[in-house]
Amino acid sequence: MANITKKVSWSSRGDESGGGERTPLLNGSEEIRITRQLSGDGGMFHIGRLSTVDLEEDLTSEEDTVRGCPKEIPHNEKLLSLKFESLDYDNSENQLFLEEERRMSFMGFRCLEISRWVVCGLIGFLTGLIACCIDIAVENLAGVKYFVVKQNIEKFTEVGGLSISLILWAVLNSAFVMVGAVIVAFFEPGAAGSGIPQIKCYLNGVKIPRVVRLKTLVVKVFGVICSVAGGLAVGKEGPMIHSGAVVAAGVSQGRSTSLKKDFKIFEYFRRDTEKRDFVSAGAAAGVSAAFGAPVGGVLFSLEEGASFWNQMLTWRIFFASMISTFTLNFFLSIYNKKPGELSSPGLINFGRFESESVAYNIYEIPLFIVMGAIGGLLGALFNILNYWLTIFRIRYVHRPCLQVMEAMLVAAVTATVSFTMIYFSNDCQPLRPDQSEDYPLQLFCADGQYNSMATAFFNTPERSVRSLFHNPPGSYNPLTLSVFTLTYFLLACWTYGLTVSAGVFIPSLLIGAAWGRLFGILLASITPNGSIWAVPGKYALIGAAAQLGGIVRMTLSLTVIMVEATGNVTYGLPIMLVLMTAKIVGDYFVEGLYDIHIKLQSVPFLHWEAPATSHWLTAREVMSAPVTCFKRIEKVATIVDVLSNTSTNHNGFPVVVPVAASDDPGKICGLILRSQIIVLLKHKVFVELARSRLTQRKLQLKDFRDAYPRFPPIQSIHVSQDERECMMDLTEFMNPTPYTVPQETSLPRVFKLFRALGLRHLVVVDNENRVVGLVTRKDLARYHLGKHGLEEMQLAQT
Amino acid sequence: MANITKKVSWSSRGDESGGGERTPLLNGSEEIRITRQLSGDGGMFHIGRLSTVDLEEDLTSEEDTVRGCPKEIPHNEKLLSLKFESLDYDNSENQLFLEEERRMSFMGFRCLEISRWVVCGLIGFLTGLIACCIDIAVENLAGVKYFVVKQNIEKFTEVGGLSISLILWAVLNSAFVMVGAVIVAFFEPGAAGSGIPQIKCYLNGVKIPRVVRLKTLVVKVFGVICSVAGGLAVGKEGPMIHSGAVVAAGVSQGRSTSLKKDFKIFEYFRRDTEKRDFVSAGAAAGVSAAFGAPVGGVLFSLEEGASFWNQMLTWRIFFASMISTFTLNFFLSIYNKKPGELSSPGLINFGRFESESVAYNIYEIPLFIVMGAIGGLLGALFNILNYWLTIFRIRYVHRPCLQVMEAMLVAAVTATVSFTMIYFSNDCQPLRPDQSEDYPLQLFCADGQYNSMATAFFNTPERSVRSLFHNPPGSYNPLTLSVFTLTYFLLACWTYGLTVSAGVFIPSLLIGAAWGRLFGILLASITPNGSIWAVPGKYALIGAAAQLGGIVRMTLSLTVIMVEATGNVTYGLPIMLVLMTAKIVGDYFVEGLYDIHIKLQSVPFLHWEAPATSHWLTAREVMSAPVTCFKRIEKVATIVDVLSNTSTNHNGFPVVVPVAASDDPGKICGLILRSQIIVLLKHKVFVELARSRLTQRKLQLKDFRDAYPRFPPIQSIHVSQDERECMMDLTEFMNPTPYTVPQETSLPRVFKLFRALGLRHLVVVDNENRVVGLVTRKDLARYHLGKHGLEEMQLAQT
Repeated sequence: MANITKKVSWSSRGDESGGGERTPLLNGSEEIRITRQLSGDGGMFHIGRLSTVDLEEDLTSEEDTVRGCPKEIPHNEKLLSLKFESLDYDNSENQLFLEEERRMSFMGFRCLEISRWVVCGLIGFLTGLIACCIDIAVENLAGVKYFVVKQNIEKFTEVGGLSISLILWAVLNSAFVMVGAVIVAFFEPGAAGSGIPQIKCYLNGVKIPRVVRLKTLVVKVFGVICSVAGGLAVGKEGPMIHSGAVVAAGVSQGRSTSLKKDFKIFEYFRRDTEKRDFVSAGAAAGVSAAFGAPVGGVLFSLEEGASFWNQMLTWRIFFASMISTFTLNFFLSIYNKKPGELSSPGLINFGRFESESVAYNIYEIPLFIVMGAIGGLLGALFNILNYWLTIFRIRYVHRPCLQVMEAMLVAAVTATVSFTMIYFSNDCQPLRPDQSEDYPLQLFCADGQYNSMATAFFNTPERSVRSLFHNPPGSYNPLTLSVFTLTYFLLACWTYGLTVSAGVFIPSLLIGAAWGRLFGILLASITPNGSIWAVPGKYALIGAAAQLGGIVRMTLSLTVIMVEATGNVTYGLPIMLVLMTAKIVGDYFVEGLYDIHIKLQSVPFLHWEAPATSHWLTAREVMSAPVTCFKRIEKVATIVDVLSNTSTNHNGFPVVVPVAASDDPGKICGLILRSQIIVLLKHKVFVELARSRLTQRKLQLKDFRDAYPRFPPIQSIHVSQDERECMMDLTEFMNPTPYTVPQETSLPRVFKLFRALGLRHLVVVDNENRVVGLVTRKDLARYHLGKHGLEEMQLAQT
Repeated sequence: MANITKKVSWSSRGDESGGGERTPLLNGSEEIRITRQLSGDGGMFHIGRLSTVDLEEDLTSEEDTVRGCPKEIPHNEKLLSLKFESLDYDNSENQLFLEEERRMSFMGFRCLEISRWVVCGLIGFLTGLIACCIDIAVENLAGVKYFVVKQNIEKFTEVGGLSISLILWAVLNSAFVMVGAVIVAFFEPGAAGSGIPQIKCYLNGVKIPRVVRLKTLVVKVFGVICSVAGGLAVGKEGPMIHSGAVVAAGVSQGRSTSLKKDFKIFEYFRRDTEKRDFVSAGAAAGVSAAFGAPVGGVLFSLEEGASFWNQMLTWRIFFASMISTFTLNFFLSIYNKKPGELSSPGLINFGRFESESVAYNIYEIPLFIVMGAIGGLLGALFNILNYWLTIFRIRYVHRPCLQVMEAMLVAAVTATVSFTMIYFSNDCQPLRPDQSEDYPLQLFCADGQYNSMATAFFNTPERSVRSLFHNPPGSYNPLTLSVFTLTYFLLACWTYGLTVSAGVFIPSLLIGAAWGRLFGILLASITPNGSIWAVPGKYALIGAAAQLGGIVRMTLSLTVIMVEATGNVTYGLPIMLVLMTAKIVGDYFVEGLYDIHIKLQSVPFLHWEAPATSHWLTAREVMSAPVTCFKRIEKVATIVDVLSNTSTNHNGFPVVVPVAASDDPGKICGLILRSQIIVLLKHKVFVELARSRLTQRKLQLKDFRDAYPRFPPIQSIHVSQDERECMMDLTEFMNPTPYTVPQETSLPRVFKLFRALGLRHLVVVDNENRVVGLVTRKDLARYHLGKHGLEEMQLAQT
């Protein structure tokens, strides 16, 4: 749709080299717009243009001062950014690694396995604890706020001058949201939004800068407390998942780079393979804590992350999920003064649907499917509106102060709209003794009655959802519900994408529950014998599922999460059918909300399979060529020059044995990563020096682990003129058996290998084993099925 | 442990060439015991010895007459049989395949996708229907039986002569079991047992002969009805899973080879890749129907089968599971005269544990863990006893008639033991109006009372489990429970492995529920204030989980199945901890029951990862070499001779370009399968003939699909002397881009590639791309971690 210039991004506030108001895409001076023909005949580019160094993190932290002049990023969902790097899920099995593994006894492996379990237990525990803190903080803050406002409203209802109550409410909301927005906008923009798109990308294998930092976690937690307490139409579930992932990334490394503290434990886990596994567990623990759905959490992690399914890993992920739910329940039970009662579910509690009272019948299934279609339509509408809004924000709302002001505006408007609707609503309901509402507002209702619109707005969204599911028939009148649906839909749509830490799950559920209940009430009214439709809570549930499915388009894990959150497996089939329908209908119009935001960030996201009609493409057309290779024993000057070349910025270098005719590419004998070479350079592992200081200790795997994950940039390593003349022997450090494919391999086959093994570099060889190209994530992510068949996205050096 | 001669096996009744009473392993005339050194220096064997043709199926069906002289199979759990072949999960991307894929439009792929969903829906529907039939048949048959026996007992209780009742009972049981055993032993031995080990192997990628045949399904269904109705200590859940898998394999192919009927649909799915995916769905549907656990079913399939996780596939599997539960519920609701009430769970119904009434507390968790350890111990004991019994059976009980007699004996003994125990029990309980027992036996109790021992025996095992879970405290006295546990333990152990179609899930649950309830009662009696322990049903549940976990050692899926079957997610953590403890304790002594039976069949089963300490092995040591290769254009005589060589029996042949020095191995340019060559030979695709009949149609993918999966043996293809002089051009039919690894690749790396992509042949090349070896399933499955580190299993040509 729009080809615009991006001024906000997930990760950076424009702290890199770029300057003024140019659109680099359109004046290719530094950043070159790379357009490659599909046929591949004229499309031979230097691979350097297709990959970039992942050192931004460090630059970022150094240059935090350069604020307020955001770099413009060419921005289009048909572009792939070269800024993002892959994680190395494939171990580099070099000699050091193999020696370590061979030295390790069986007991050593067993200890490792036990420490993996311990780490997962810790992840679950901490995630549950954080969830518990968030929950308690939100409950208390929101409680105080609603109490004050209620007091105020009640005072002024009698004496008149309710506008003062409105102002009080709006100011309270804005104040909370301001705090939340300021910490996000000024301290850690990576903590904005729900975090689910970022975690999806991370689990997919894309290294999103700063996404699993401690600072992000802190800002995320405080941000979400503020935004929920500030009465925005947001949920705290997405941020919980992100928090779990950060906890996992932190705990598993046994140190904190931000706090400069190394506990000297879990050093074995300091590589992408292990870290990504733990982050899966963390995300699962987050889901588990958020929804009380440990199985749903595991499936979420698998759906988003796993490529190669491993039983022990899944089992560990499940353990983390279980511990997380358990911890949350345990602490909440203490908080609720019923210590030891572990049967309460997660943060979000849909309440239990009893099969006896809320049974469904086979002839209701078509109705559920219709609701699924409605959910798909409304979800698509939501996503399209939010897409436009995001584009608008990228164009015009990119300065932190503007972002904070927008968030405050939304908070004030939310309060105003709520207040107006409560004010003008005349839906009075009798106050029953078993009243579940915490803050029933009488307002202009008769004594013994309360304003039903007020219960919907005057509550945290979680409680409103539960009321819609479980309040007895007749608790809401249709007009209230329809007005509520409309306003909340617009508010939620406006809210998602603000520079606050907030999720979209609960607002979606709330919208869906509202129109679902409305649907149920209408059904009951048009059928003569309304007894079977008399359970509007059932329709509220289905509507909630449909709306959420229509917005986020998750499938398996969402079904299980819904089933677990309702505690009733018999709703499995209807929920599944509804989610399928919502997805099919929604996908017809637009992608899911998370995918839209991922695409808007131009992330090279790999789907499950190559596009169906891509069999006519082969590795030869897909790969990047020619490749910069190193020899086994290479001159330091050559290496430093290649690494320093900012226009190429390679990350993986095939190591080759040159063949006779020097023009021909060499035969592959290994693959070495930039990060490895950096460590070698830092430790001056040169052939000449090795001879002169034989007694000195050999470089060990530990040296690589200590530098992980923030390897210094090449610029920070001083290489003297003498050293430039030395030679480096890469044999010991390269991966001697990188995966290779012949040139004729079809794209789906390359894709499958790449995806299944979580590769970062795949070497393409000819039938003499000579290196002819290199396939990286961008080369595969470029192809996607558009409306007119296979399309290729452009790569942008941003 | 024992190195014995096997006379019964899963698949064959000795219908192959083998003869008398020799032990081939010990007189290596035809079958050579292949002992290979780990170092690999002297271990160069002709690869033919390491693989065998998978044509046994057809020979079997032809030669069913050769019965009663079973072939002896060298038999040891430290052996790997060469009889089993891998499935080809990797597509052979030859020119025909690529042409078809490239021709196919996007709509074509979409239609394929839709038909996959339709097939999954059908699989779910049929599996649910079969489950429903089994359930209704068992209920009715068992009902009639118990009614008759009860009448008889009541008649004779007064007049004396209860021995006549005993005889009646024993005869009825034996009659049912005889029918069940006869059809299994004489018609389809593959239908014996629970079928889960076979399905595990199939999903692991091993082609188990006859396991997914229509005949197997029919025998399985009737067999399980007979054995459950015959009162054996068996369940119908394992067979349900097997049935689902057979249904899937049948439906997805759109034809029945057994019935000689081809519906000409789903032809695209006629290859191992697609079939295995559908079988996963079928197994999941089976679990789902058996336990009312659709999510558990999906996880079962993934735990056992999936290597490469694919979201769409999982989603389809889930769909099949859902449909299966739904179908079962729908038909059962009609049968129970409450049409449309879909809220009843699967075949096994644990009843709902309400969190309010059956809460647990944090200080009970150590108790649960202790119970897990007990379950692990008892499970290990069960497995060891059953292992010895299986060895005994393999040695002495190998003729069908003996097997039938053993089954009848067990049935009679079961009846006798039950009767004796009921007779001598004096555990009388008052008959309450809300009595849930169907057949309360008064026997010698006072009027208005019933014999509590009788309820445990005089019931289908499913009902007994439910009674143990849900009957109020005081329904059973401790003595009854302990005697019951002991006898049922022994009976169940004796029963598993009989030549009847029967599962071990329910008996395990029943044993565990009995001692778990006993545990709860004892706890209540030793604590002064017994109120908190007063819910023995809770301990029955934990005990059931512990015992089942101790026997089968499943983890993730079993947790979810138990949680879904109890309908209460709050028991997730205790059940998980219990299963983990049971697995850890049990694994210390002996493997899981299914794994024992898989090992006793010498199946080359690939675990999730290579043994931890195998990094010092490389592809060079692991591979089989030298390899029989073909040239691109090869003489027919050479091909026919290689294929006919029964001492080699290769299945995959690298296609090479010869290099100058003719002794050197050629450069790899493709891989062709025996099955493909067979089809080529059958259609006389010779270079010379192609020239003479240019107008004739080209060989198409359809020809290969029509022959799938029962490719004719080479012996059945007549090749004349003239034709032997012709040449065959393999270029078009070979897979031009087989996966290759260099010789130095470490075993874990080879293993990961092989397992993740579901390969059958992995070519090992040197740095000139010359073929130096071939890695197949057996080469990888040979290595396992024994008590003294890495051990290597021997290969046996059986």
